[in-house]
Amino acid sequence: MHGAEFIQDLAVIMLIAGIVTIIFHYFRQPVVLGYILAGVIIGPHTPPFELIQDDRTIKIVAELGVVFLMFSLGLEFNLKKLSRVGVTAFIAAFGEIVLMTWIGYEIGRYFGWKAMDALFLGAMLAISSTTIIIKALDELGLKHERFAQLIFGILIVEDVLAIGMIALLSGIAMNGSVDAGDVFVTVGKLSLFMIVTLVLGLLLVPRILAYVARFKSNEVFLITVLGLCFGFCLLVLQMEYSIALGAFMIGAIMAEARQLHLIERLIAPIRDMFSALFFVGVGLLFNPTVLVTYAWPIAVITVAVVLGKVFACGLGTFIAGNDGRTSMRVGMGLSQIGEFSFIIASLGLTLQVTSDFLYPIVVAVSAVTTLLTPYLIKWADPVSLRAAAAMPDSISRVANRYTDWLQHKQPEGDRAALFKIIVRIVAQVIVNCAMTAAVFLAGIYVFGVIEKHLAGSIADEHTQKAIVFAGALALSLPFLIATYRKLNALSQLLAEIVIGDGGHFVYGLRRLISEVIPLLSIAGILLLIGLLSARILPPTNMLMLLLLAAAIVTALLWKTFVRWHTRLQIALFETLEHSNDEKT
Amino acid sequence: MHGAEFIQDLAVIMLIAGIVTIIFHYFRQPVVLGYILAGVIIGPHTPPFELIQDDRTIKIVAELGVVFLMFSLGLEFNLKKLSRVGVTAFIAAFGEIVLMTWIGYEIGRYFGWKAMDALFLGAMLAISSTTIIIKALDELGLKHERFAQLIFGILIVEDVLAIGMIALLSGIAMNGSVDAGDVFVTVGKLSLFMIVTLVLGLLLVPRILAYVARFKSNEVFLITVLGLCFGFCLLVLQMEYSIALGAFMIGAIMAEARQLHLIERLIAPIRDMFSALFFVGVGLLFNPTVLVTYAWPIAVITVAVVLGKVFACGLGTFIAGNDGRTSMRVGMGLSQIGEFSFIIASLGLTLQVTSDFLYPIVVAVSAVTTLLTPYLIKWADPVSLRAAAAMPDSISRVANRYTDWLQHKQPEGDRAALFKIIVRIVAQVIVNCAMTAAVFLAGIYVFGVIEKHLAGSIADEHTQKAIVFAGALALSLPFLIATYRKLNALSQLLAEIVIGDGGHFVYGLRRLISEVIPLLSIAGILLLIGLLSARILPPTNMLMLLLLAAAIVTALLWKTFVRWHTRLQIALFETLEHSNDEKT
Repeated sequence: MHGAEFIQDLAVIMLIAGIVTIIFHYFRQPVVLGYILAGVIIGPHTPPFELIQDDRTIKIVAELGVVFLMFSLGLEFNLKKLSRVGVTAFIAAFGEIVLMTWIGYEIGRYFGWKAMDALFLGAMLAISSTTIIIKALDELGLKHERFAQLIFGILIVEDVLAIGMIALLSGIAMNGSVDAGDVFVTVGKLSLFMIVTLVLGLLLVPRILAYVARFKSNEVFLITVLGLCFGFCLLVLQMEYSIALGAFMIGAIMAEARQLHLIERLIAPIRDMFSALFFVGVGLLFNPTVLVTYAWPIAVITVAVVLGKVFACGLGTFIAGNDGRTSMRVGMGLSQIGEFSFIIASLGLTLQVTSDFLYPIVVAVSAVTTLLTPYLIKWADPVSLRAAAAMPDSISRVANRYTDWLQHKQPEGDRAALFKIIVRIVAQVIVNCAMTAAVFLAGIYVFGVIEKHLAGSIADEHTQKAIVFAGALALSLPFLIATYRKLNALSQLLAEIVIGDGGHFVYGLRRLISEVIPLLSIAGILLLIGLLSARILPPTNMLMLLLLAAAIVTALLWKTFVRWHTRLQIALFETLEHSNDEKT
Repeated sequence: MHGAEFIQDLAVIMLIAGIVTIIFHYFRQPVVLGYILAGVIIGPHTPPFELIQDDRTIKIVAELGVVFLMFSLGLEFNLKKLSRVGVTAFIAAFGEIVLMTWIGYEIGRYFGWKAMDALFLGAMLAISSTTIIIKALDELGLKHERFAQLIFGILIVEDVLAIGMIALLSGIAMNGSVDAGDVFVTVGKLSLFMIVTLVLGLLLVPRILAYVARFKSNEVFLITVLGLCFGFCLLVLQMEYSIALGAFMIGAIMAEARQLHLIERLIAPIRDMFSALFFVGVGLLFNPTVLVTYAWPIAVITVAVVLGKVFACGLGTFIAGNDGRTSMRVGMGLSQIGEFSFIIASLGLTLQVTSDFLYPIVVAVSAVTTLLTPYLIKWADPVSLRAAAAMPDSISRVANRYTDWLQHKQPEGDRAALFKIIVRIVAQVIVNCAMTAAVFLAGIYVFGVIEKHLAGSIADEHTQKAIVFAGALALSLPFLIATYRKLNALSQLLAEIVIGDGGHFVYGLRRLISEVIPLLSIAGILLLIGLLSARILPPTNMLMLLLLAAAIVTALLWKTFVRWHTRLQIALFETLEHSNDEKT
């Protein structure tokens, strides 16, 4: 009767978590710490004894907490929100991650830990805790102030960068080293995967959800949401990325569905239940004797987290053009580590590349910094006032001048509009190239399957290759045509700007630029695809024939392809530009 | 990486369940069947192959479905609703359970199955499926008609009786035989446990929930609800009852909390997720080849379920005083088996007393009868009309006369009020006796613990017994006093009715009856308690001393005890008589 054991264990966990949670809430301390403490009490390292029997199953189920936490984070991810605080968020988040990873790595090396431990410590210190910050700001009633909006922006960017970091760490842990080429390939593959799945997901998922929502059954809707969420995680696992990435991405895709509020309402209890289990699971792994053995590293790391994050986030916010007070508040708000650190710590343990002592240290640092968070937010104003008073006049004058200068530097009017158009076109070119590349990579995958299972049974290898290549080429034609048209528009725009108005000669030059450049780019893209798809390239004569056929088809069906593509594009923009107004 | 395996399995299940659910909902078929079919597809008995790797963990987690299903049923349980359709519901439900258990048992024996298989088959056929009926009535838009209310009443009574049946079946399965004495002891213990936990639960749980609700945090509230739910299940498991009983009872207790709507809103998604898993788990165990091998039993059982339930429930409803049309509609609505049958089937497998073929047979019967349910509800009217037309005049005249007679038989005015008062007093006496018994049983438990762990270290055995007995006596005094007072009131009332108004002699007789009977009853109760608590009875001289002390305390503190008890009683009634008006 293993089932009864598991349910008993779960009962013990829920009972103790419930009691501790109420006590923590009564003393106005973060509930998350209550869960961790409950885990410590239940766990094997504290008296009276291990209160649960089947901790294997509990740990397995607790991992669902990661799925639902990341899924919820994804639901709160919002391209519009992000664009409003975009520049600040990017600068601060990027600066913070680089600095904190470096500080963490250096601290690890200083204490003589092995390189992989130091690297994972760096990664664990890099990301602040969305859960804890949102709760603290909520309780202090500061959620709608501008610095809070900046903090949320930084958190979103951190989440995205963290996803990339998890992928990178897994790669490094598996290969044992960092190679610039590897990093490039990893980041490239990850970007390709993210762009393609986001585009396809945004086209499909909101439509599926809208269809199911018409049934007016919360149960069917919830099961569909869970089916899509877990189904996508399955795909991501097949691609050998982490489940955290998958849950976050499908959450971000569903964030664009009209039924967002319903999804949030249905998922919240499930997330709360499993995240409680997840944090209790964190506590289960915590051995309090580590607090004594590793008191010194814990103290150093805690100080480093608080000072490093205040400095990195504050400076990043300031550089991006905010005043000193706002920068200080942002920096002090972000000075803690939380759920992401636990996820990365689990990753290290799962991949068996980190030492056992790392996990409890990170839990301890997270507990201390979490407890400090509300006080740091409250202290931000007095500290920034005192800092301003203590600062030498010359520095503060330079600082003020920088802020002023930056505000005048912002592109305005026509220039800003032009800049926006260019950014938009470049983004569209990138997305279309990504779709083309994805089609050809899918072709290689299909060819691999054919080669494995149907070897020789359909046709000889050359014909197989030709068929797959032709299919991929046909599917990618709309995207290639779109790429050509966008590049055309872009180079005309650029030619206009660079050459200005002029005579006949200039007109010819402009035409040359605006038509030759796109063609050259397309040729370059085709060449790249040729290299990518080397495995399915048919022999030269066949290839020539296929390209000729493609050219004829393109010429004949140009308008049709453009229409198809435009329709897809409109569908995508519709999804992105609606508002989640249905409060069901 | 077992965790990844489990999450992959869950992902496969959720994905397939999501797809099948949408398809089933599109064709307006019960979603529950969709889950079961998804389980069959995923399971090992159908091509392509077993799609999940770690089915042990899946099955363990699926058992949580039982907890949440029963908890939700408990939340819908309502004493007020029940009292409105009480008599009909009790007669129909009791008749149905007895008849169906007997029919099931006989069918099992007819096919030559062993006695335990036949008995479990009977139990599986006894209870109709709340989930499926509610969905069917909802979809047909008949939820608020009178026959639907009767159906819900019968379902509630069935749920309660089923709980008793599960306890009995476990007992029989463990001992191998049915003994009238055992049944009496089992039912007595179960009733005692249910009364005591309901009283204590109703006093404590709504107050705890009201306190936590003031935090205005859905997360803390949910974790508290889960903590209470699982904590109570833990207690129930300790008492060696099933977790289904525990979840149902704590649900029924929470149904009296003011925050019922919030609880329902937070629990619904979790229940939907785990009940989906539970039904998929049912499908996993289903081997379609059984359909062929056991085609004949399945057909016979299906026909027996439909005809037997139409007959038993219809007749019961009619006997309780409803017209023929309503009775037919009630009977046809209840003609299926569902989640309870699976729970009992699992019980049999877990206790290893039933054969493997029973589970798939029940799943098949459930699937067919579930599919029939909406049609049966629709056909109820035409069938009852045709039955009325085909019925010989003499029978229909007798039937009509019965209905008329019964309606005149209902107690009215003063008599009805008097009857209500008597029922109420008897209920209070039973509850107070139950509390007294519980206090002494707890005393025995405490003494057992003392004997085991502190043997000889505190005092000699006699003193230990005396202390424990004194404590139990002191704690039970308020309940004993209340019992005496209620009995007093009851016998005065009865004396009034029996003897009527009369002279001096009658007055004396009345006083005699009204004072002697209660004293005798109390003496009887004390004697019973003495027998119950034989293990902690101190030696006679000490006992006499203690009883004398108790008598003195009673005399001195009579009013205080009465005040305490009244306060508790008021608190209990307050909980029961509020309305769940807070739609948060």
